[in-house]
Amino acid sequence: MEQPGEIKKVSMAVIKRLPKYYKCLGELLRKNVERVSSQELSKLLGFTASQIRQDLNNFGEFGQQGYGYNVSQLYNEVAKILGLTTSHKMVLIGAGNLGQALANYSGFATHGFNIIAIFDTNPSIVGRKIRDIPIYHVDDMEYFINSNDVDIAVLAVPGDVTEKIVEVLVNTDIRGIWNFTPTEINVSNKDITVENVHLIDSLLTLSYRINESWLRERLLKQEGKNTKFPHRKKMSFMVK
Amino acid sequence: MEQPGEIKKVSMAVIKRLPKYYKCLGELLRKNVERVSSQELSKLLGFTASQIRQDLNNFGEFGQQGYGYNVSQLYNEVAKILGLTTSHKMVLIGAGNLGQALANYSGFATHGFNIIAIFDTNPSIVGRKIRDIPIYHVDDMEYFINSNDVDIAVLAVPGDVTEKIVEVLVNTDIRGIWNFTPTEINVSNKDITVENVHLIDSLLTLSYRINESWLRERLLKQEGKNTKFPHRKKMSFMVK
Repeated sequence: MEQPGEIKKVSMAVIKRLPKYYKCLGELLRKNVERVSSQELSKLLGFTASQIRQDLNNFGEFGQQGYGYNVSQLYNEVAKILGLTTSHKMVLIGAGNLGQALANYSGFATHGFNIIAIFDTNPSIVGRKIRDIPIYHVDDMEYFINSNDVDIAVLAVPGDVTEKIVEVLVNTDIRGIWNFTPTEINVSNKDITVENVHLIDSLLTLSYRINESWLRERLLKQEGKNTKFPHRKKMSFMVK
Repeated sequence: MEQPGEIKKVSMAVIKRLPKYYKCLGELLRKNVERVSSQELSKLLGFTASQIRQDLNNFGEFGQQGYGYNVSQLYNEVAKILGLTTSHKMVLIGAGNLGQALANYSGFATHGFNIIAIFDTNPSIVGRKIRDIPIYHVDDMEYFINSNDVDIAVLAVPGDVTEKIVEVLVNTDIRGIWNFTPTEINVSNKDITVENVHLIDSLLTLSYRINESWLRERLLKQEGKNTKFPHRKKMSFMVK
């Protein structure tokens, strides 16, 4: 394989916007829209037109001045960039509550991501199937991944076994870990990409923001008290 | 109710770190650790000690110089800040594939978030139950939310009906929307907080990053070609 050389890394912010381009262009395609300008995309996506042109320029020259973008061409290009022109084999590790939910969800398959095996240690479910996907013992995971060209491991195990599972995964041919466990994963193997989905964190963030008005009142009360101790004011409160 | 006045908003970055403090302190508590310094927290969390002190100072004075933080006290304070000291009632809207998966997941309940009703339009499932949670028709949603003190609506409907559902939700007493649909939600009602979980976007981001080495090679080839047209180089490629 050729060495990739000195190519600038695309920023995470750009990468995070790519799925939004992909979905937006997919919708335009379904509406039979043939071409679209960066201004029109801007209205649909909420990013500025120059941001959109810059983002796409990271990957080549797609638009034409005065014409805009050919929707179907750009859609196909973004799909290629996102690695969606080939299907991906995934294994799901952990068939507990969340694992079963993920196994039962067919939405990933519509984008070409197929769970082909599930791994767990629970003897009461090993040997069974979820939606025709076989459940094997975790001991067979390494062999299975390497002999079946698996791209992605979907991790839905309890937090305390995450590390042990990751230790096995780094020795396989896996390319990516989609991490649903509460644990942050650090992978020494640089060929493996980790993407975290912390569902509970997201719910707690929502909870915080709902709770914020209560917090404001409490802070105001403390601030009221605190004016008696003006020397403490600076370090603890955030009143403007 | 008192007016909250001019209290500075806590930044989203701080808010996003709160669940990590909460989880880390919970683990320390389970290990019977009584006190912890910001330096020790720094090692466990990967944020700097001064960052941790700053973050927590947003909410009051918790630590004591030379002593550090009392783990159980700080845990309880962070739980309060996150709104976890009272339980939350949620409704799930959309009992399709993803909705069913979410309904079957009991992990939210362990943090005090309980799905008490599910809404859908499909006559073949309305009237049934998932894990003892009744499924009602969407037409009854508004009345149900307002008469049952529901805090959070978990949205798992198809993208094209999201807008219609949100139009109903903004007229209810709901406080937060946890959005699993592919659609970005804009809520005019400022008392409603939206938290987006774009699972497919996360998977596509992972896919992109796995695909990046292929992309690099392609860009290099284009770059090779492009040296024939040095005037085009600047606008389209990102070689250093």
